[in-house]
Amino acid sequence: MNKARISVIVWNEFQHERENAAVRAIYPDGLHAVIAQALSETPGLNPGALPLDVGTATLDQPEHGLSEARLADCDVLVWWGHKAHASVSDDVVERVQRRVLEGMGLIVLHSGHFSKIFRRLLGTNCSLKWREADEKERIWVVEPSHPIAAGLPEYFELPFEEMYGERFDVPPPDETVFISWFEGGEVFRSGLCWQRGHGRIFYFRPGHEAYPSYHDPCVQRVLANAVQWAAPRVNLVDRCPMAAPLEKIAQKDVVFQRLGVVQTHKDLQ
Amino acid sequence: MNKARISVIVWNEFQHERENAAVRAIYPDGLHAVIAQALSETPGLNPGALPLDVGTATLDQPEHGLSEARLADCDVLVWWGHKAHASVSDDVVERVQRRVLEGMGLIVLHSGHFSKIFRRLLGTNCSLKWREADEKERIWVVEPSHPIAAGLPEYFELPFEEMYGERFDVPPPDETVFISWFEGGEVFRSGLCWQRGHGRIFYFRPGHEAYPSYHDPCVQRVLANAVQWAAPRVNLVDRCPMAAPLEKIAQKDVVFQRLGVVQTHKDLQ
Amino acid sequence: MNKARISVIVWNEFQHERENAAVRAIYPDGLHAVIAQALSETPGLNPGALPLDVGTATLDQPEHGLSEARLADCDVLVWWGHKAHASVSDDVVERVQRRVLEGMGLIVLHSGHFSKIFRRLLGTNCSLKWREADEKERIWVVEPSHPIAAGLPEYFELPFEEMYGERFDVPPPDETVFISWFEGGEVFRSGLCWQRGHGRIFYFRPGHEAYPSYHDPCVQRVLANAVQWAAPRVNLVDRCPMAAPLEKIAQKDVVFQRLGVVQTHKDLQ
Amino acid sequence: MNKARISVIVWNEFQHERENAAVRAIYPDGLHAVIAQALSETPGLNPGALPLDVGTATLDQPEHGLSEARLADCDVLVWWGHKAHASVSDDVVERVQRRVLEGMGLIVLHSGHFSKIFRRLLGTNCSLKWREADEKERIWVVEPSHPIAAGLPEYFELPFEEMYGERFDVPPPDETVFISWFEGGEVFRSGLCWQRGHGRIFYFRPGHEAYPSYHDPCVQRVLANAVQWAAPRVNLVDRCPMAAPLEKIAQKDVVFQRLGVVQTHKDLQ
Repeated sequence: MNKARISVIVWNEFQHERENAAVRAIYPDGLHAVIAQALSETPGLNPGALPLDVGTATLDQPEHGLSEARLADCDVLVWWGHKAHASVSDDVVERVQRRVLEGMGLIVLHSGHFSKIFRRLLGTNCSLKWREADEKERIWVVEPSHPIAAGLPEYFELPFEEMYGERFDVPPPDETVFISWFEGGEVFRSGLCWQRGHGRIFYFRPGHEAYPSYHDPCVQRVLANAVQWAAPRVNLVDRCPMAAPLEKIAQKDVVFQRLGVVQTHKDLQ
Repeated sequence: MNKARISVIVWNEFQHERENAAVRAIYPDGLHAVIAQALSETPGLNPGALPLDVGTATLDQPEHGLSEARLADCDVLVWWGHKAHASVSDDVVERVQRRVLEGMGLIVLHSGHFSKIFRRLLGTNCSLKWREADEKERIWVVEPSHPIAAGLPEYFELPFEEMYGERFDVPPPDETVFISWFEGGEVFRSGLCWQRGHGRIFYFRPGHEAYPSYHDPCVQRVLANAVQWAAPRVNLVDRCPMAAPLEKIAQKDVVFQRLGVVQTHKDLQ
Repeated sequence: MNKARISVIVWNEFQHERENAAVRAIYPDGLHAVIAQALSETPGLNPGALPLDVGTATLDQPEHGLSEARLADCDVLVWWGHKAHASVSDDVVERVQRRVLEGMGLIVLHSGHFSKIFRRLLGTNCSLKWREADEKERIWVVEPSHPIAAGLPEYFELPFEEMYGERFDVPPPDETVFISWFEGGEVFRSGLCWQRGHGRIFYFRPGHEAYPSYHDPCVQRVLANAVQWAAPRVNLVDRCPMAAPLEKIAQKDVVFQRLGVVQTHKDLQ
Repeated sequence: MNKARISVIVWNEFQHERENAAVRAIYPDGLHAVIAQALSETPGLNPGALPLDVGTATLDQPEHGLSEARLADCDVLVWWGHKAHASVSDDVVERVQRRVLEGMGLIVLHSGHFSKIFRRLLGTNCSLKWREADEKERIWVVEPSHPIAAGLPEYFELPFEEMYGERFDVPPPDETVFISWFEGGEVFRSGLCWQRGHGRIFYFRPGHEAYPSYHDPCVQRVLANAVQWAAPRVNLVDRCPMAAPLEKIAQKDVVFQRLGVVQTHKDLQ
């Protein structure tokens, strides 16, 4: 790859913002617009950070805005969905999965834990506990030297968030970057990394639509770091090729009659 | 669980044995029959090994022999398939996936790397290199203290096997127990462990239908050990419950001021 | 190994209990005595759980009670230390390390995070945050199907404990079984598993000497489960042997030409 | 850190080259000189790769060339040692360990598997099998999308190398990038990654002093990539601070008499 820029698509189902005035007050143009703007304006902190080209896509667009052509050029896809998971076309989900396995990064946000694409790539239920109670979330940085934690303090707080609690039914993560403390008494692994195929996946917990979490500078810092981290380093298609031997294979003294064998394996020894 | 016995089903698509005389010569009643007998007769070596009740199931049975009732009672499912992956019903695949996430063990053999159930649980292509050239496979034990390696020498050999080579497109395994050396020049991670939900998954490479690998005592030892390792320790269904707070949540008297939003949070809902 | 019983030594520096009346009131005979008794009386829950033979050892005994002979027969060593880490002999530390690498299990408790043996096996500082403020700890079970979590509810509480907070400077754990929530606002990875050599290591956070945590039934259940989990499956000494080739190595007739070096490789030696 | 350049020290015990004419013919100025030059001349392939400042250090220099001041400025240390591991001062080893835990990268080569610093950071014996028989090593890229594999083909060969075989007694690696196939019949995990503290460690197998492996372009590519990968992203010192509570801790109704407690825990409930 070694491209000079990273191409990002922020995908949003964009339903709550249209249906609920309170949500619209926080995200008038959709939370994808706030995330996209934040990504465009947040400078990279990691050594060698690349500039971003940021676009958006939404559920109601043709092919949900994720045509083959657009995905082919996408380096990192950010995904927010909640109430319309079932409306996402299986074809598009399969297309996104294929691109992740080829190397495209995927950042799944908050209620995206139940999205088709997240569950398909991870293979588990991705279930968790939840509660909406205007409570404080304190996000602890467990791996301060991880690229996704660059520039963050040892913890940061969101004064009002939906609670997500363990057990979070996901495969053992490759890396656990954040763990959340909730005022109401729960903990949650809030920042998790997996590799699948040649692509990197990051799940980040915050972002209930009824709270302004994507306006928070620390949340924006996490997203900007995660895009840099998830950007592809290769673009490979894994196939299942028949291979010729690299070394000479011995002529067997015992003839193994593959068409019409009568010996047992014991006979062969 | 803490059951006194482990209930095992050996599943086989059972096609090659019927269609190909050479394969039938090695596995007259199907390779599932050989595996099932071996499991029944191979004593457990790990401390606390439990006795097994072993049955079989095949593709052509109603519901492929994997009804809800049968799977509900199954502790470990062994899976061999090759040419008929596409014929396995999606409903049965989903049922098996659900049971693995609840805690049932799954042992996927050889060409089962491309089965629907393996790919669905792992989320990747599961592709690899391959060659049929009657070549020697030497299987090195990389983790001699792993329960699946109990009783094995530091390596064992299969004089004739199909070659599988890297890259094997699977998620990073939790544990790598075996790595194979092939006469023709390749290597392969031959024994891999993953946890998904509450279930344990083991992939074991050997077992091309045209070779008598499942008659090999070391292969049989691996399978017997793997069944003990994969047996469920719990039987849990993960849900996504709404939870009441365990701790008192502060009454917020501040308004939502962080964005210049003038409503209180309650107004937002 | 496949022994019929598990031999356990509970090691305690046994200083606070002698010097501090408040601690002595909770653990009159030392906290090792309470732990040893609990292990003896808590039945195993995991399938195939084995009975335990439990002994104790303390700092002031010759060789700290951990002679070569005693360690040779020990399957699982439980370690509690706090103020006297520096008094533990380097020879004994090396001996324990060697035994863990051969397969002996090691369970390190609470302030043992700073013990010589824990830091030597893990290679990191093992530092953390702390506070003594009589606060509530709620321990969440993140992996309910892990053997160490057998029989536990989804969380359990200790009404008064010392706080330990992240970042905990340990290597990425193989498995994270518990995460603690603290009343004062921190989180901590409270139950962590690592394999080193052929031995299994479990770190368990609770157990400040000034609180009766080792009298708690859930804590005792964790310790009993952890002993079963950590019990050795093999007893192997890794060496660095020179090996004869298994395959014939080609006679090289080419000279070492790659650098313009004119000698054959034999000349190089 | 976010420095504009990466400061590298290539450390070599530099003994064989002085004592053995055949080794000197391959590495007249020491293998550190060849590695340092290769690092200086091999352009970075990963997006955002930074230029390197490369120096060297050897055993016979004061403090082995690794003074506090020099290490403080070092981003990545490359280590080659074989026959003189025991001559490396414990003080310097501890200093290097401290720097790795703070974030400095460490690349350990070949026989460095038995160096004090590698064993101290990993905590295991780091033993393996070996043989000198002028045999071919084929190094398979198991993770083609890993930054350390950038620009490599799916495998590369060294026509003559010392054999290293499994079992390699190291902790479970965070990532396995390469696996070697040897002509004589063994396999070996040849490229392994670990994080310890805030530092990244990479072990790379090739490089016996009697073969010109460090002149090989693929080996040089691996080393150049590994330096970029291992470069620190932070420079943090982990401490063990006492922390003040972030949240108010409840006044306990039951007074827990820490100085003079008579209740048992049961009384408290």
